[in-house]
Amino acid sequence: MHILIIGAAGMVGRKLTSALVAAGQVNGKPIEQLTLADVVAPAAPAGFGGKVETVAADLSVPGTAARLVASRPDLIFHLAAIVSGEAEADFDKGYRINLDGTRYLLEAIRQEGARERYVPRLVFTSSIAVFGAPYPEVIEDEFFTTPLTSYGTQKAIGELLLNDYSRRGFVDGIGIRLPTITIRPGKPNAAASGFFSNILREPLAGQEAVLPVSKDVRHWFASPRAAIGFLFHAAELDSSRLGWRRSLNAPGLSATVGEEIEALRRVAGDKAVKLIREVPDAQIISMVDGWAKNFNARRAEALGFKAEKDFDEIIRIHVEDELGGKIGG
Amino acid sequence: MHILIIGAAGMVGRKLTSALVAAGQVNGKPIEQLTLADVVAPAAPAGFGGKVETVAADLSVPGTAARLVASRPDLIFHLAAIVSGEAEADFDKGYRINLDGTRYLLEAIRQEGARERYVPRLVFTSSIAVFGAPYPEVIEDEFFTTPLTSYGTQKAIGELLLNDYSRRGFVDGIGIRLPTITIRPGKPNAAASGFFSNILREPLAGQEAVLPVSKDVRHWFASPRAAIGFLFHAAELDSSRLGWRRSLNAPGLSATVGEEIEALRRVAGDKAVKLIREVPDAQIISMVDGWAKNFNARRAEALGFKAEKDFDEIIRIHVEDELGGKIGG
Repeated sequence: MHILIIGAAGMVGRKLTSALVAAGQVNGKPIEQLTLADVVAPAAPAGFGGKVETVAADLSVPGTAARLVASRPDLIFHLAAIVSGEAEADFDKGYRINLDGTRYLLEAIRQEGARERYVPRLVFTSSIAVFGAPYPEVIEDEFFTTPLTSYGTQKAIGELLLNDYSRRGFVDGIGIRLPTITIRPGKPNAAASGFFSNILREPLAGQEAVLPVSKDVRHWFASPRAAIGFLFHAAELDSSRLGWRRSLNAPGLSATVGEEIEALRRVAGDKAVKLIREVPDAQIISMVDGWAKNFNARRAEALGFKAEKDFDEIIRIHVEDELGGKIGG
Repeated sequence: MHILIIGAAGMVGRKLTSALVAAGQVNGKPIEQLTLADVVAPAAPAGFGGKVETVAADLSVPGTAARLVASRPDLIFHLAAIVSGEAEADFDKGYRINLDGTRYLLEAIRQEGARERYVPRLVFTSSIAVFGAPYPEVIEDEFFTTPLTSYGTQKAIGELLLNDYSRRGFVDGIGIRLPTITIRPGKPNAAASGFFSNILREPLAGQEAVLPVSKDVRHWFASPRAAIGFLFHAAELDSSRLGWRRSLNAPGLSATVGEEIEALRRVAGDKAVKLIREVPDAQIISMVDGWAKNFNARRAEALGFKAEKDFDEIIRIHVEDELGGKIGG
């Protein structure tokens, strides 16, 4: 089978590529060809025996999507997005990439199918940013989407389009609303949610980290490994089980910052916890106040999606996958 | 004040124009200018002392929206849409008018405001078609939007855009999800929901009507007069009461076809009821099965929106507004 990953150079894209190469198959069908696209050409993965094409491609430029689907990939992962902070800062860019880009892709698939039958599986990474405060204590699967960011708006629109194009038979779509991915590997980034990762990743490497919110802040998490598991499972799922409700709240872990820190203490000791400096940031405190705290992801769980049960496990996964089993920098 | 109505030639547009002319003011501000736009130029209203401009304008053509807002109307009603059946039959046309047209309008307002501060009130007619089966017994205000038609998808996307453009301060938007408007005046039309009106309107005029579904079918209704009341109230409402959840389920009446018919019997007698012929239509039966049956429109009611309490009232309104008080054709 031929797989296209759009947004393959990002953290999730790279991990997904590695996981696909390691598995060698999806639903028992051997992976013969990988097309990896991003705004900068992604690196070709090591250890893959099949055909690989790496493409520098901007999905928001008309014609790009048509070129990407012209080779009729059987399975498409659409991970490309302008993240929350940037979509808020640059209104036009966010709509161009996150809305127009997604619509161009769906249209390109439909047009390709108009020439000759073509209904690929399309896995779309949505986000819990489709929700906006005020929330109930626990968000159920039928809660409405009232985003409070342009990014969340664009993801919610992407979900609606994915649904309609699936219902009309143009694509076989499934959207996964990812929890906040923690522990993100790499350096601290500018994302407002970055501190959830920073306060674990940096101390685990012997570095200081800043905590800008109070310890009783609650949020919704999954590890990078769990996220890749969601996408892989979404690719293999019998989509007739979804009906015409093609987007799902992924399972995750609801935890407070205090619980994160206690897990760090259990895994890496007081020495690691002492590396966290509390420096309240009013702007981040106010943003985080609008974020979802807890879900009941009943539907995704019934469909076989799986996430971590506690932060100890999330930390252990980071130590295994990113630190070669070694704590302390 | 200057009011722009886009989609002014339709049934709701014409009634709204008359109601505005009759009121002469919105929120105590005299109406000095009316711009009435539609794909064919609407008729100028009788009895209006202010300035009227009637415009033939296709909102889906780039540049049209910019021309319409260049005169900076204070209040805009966006009623223009390709209806459900046509948006399903012609995929491209539905997206062009219902999605692109709405987005062009919002962008034109934003661009006009980029030149010099301009944040008009925008009243957008959405629809209960943003919902899709399966439903709970009663749909609450926080139920999710999972449309089962392209029309419903386009309306749901319009709501999301309206929200985001409002939150960003580009427009002061409010979306009203209209119930099925009954009794629609005029001739029977091709809309699958037309029979809800036909089985009352035709017998009230001494004509036969066809009932294609069973009498226990339940649905959600409001009169044309109530719909105009919603739009007028939406124009006058203090929008800070909406927060960033700018779209509302309008109040309405949940009733069965059997209840409609018994109301007809009370108002117009057995003779009228005998004019209804039952001719089951499998396709309509199956479509109607996916439609919403009942809402708890708590939020809209708390904001002062009002609808009819029974079908006797809906029929009386039709007799008063359309038949000059006279029953029997």
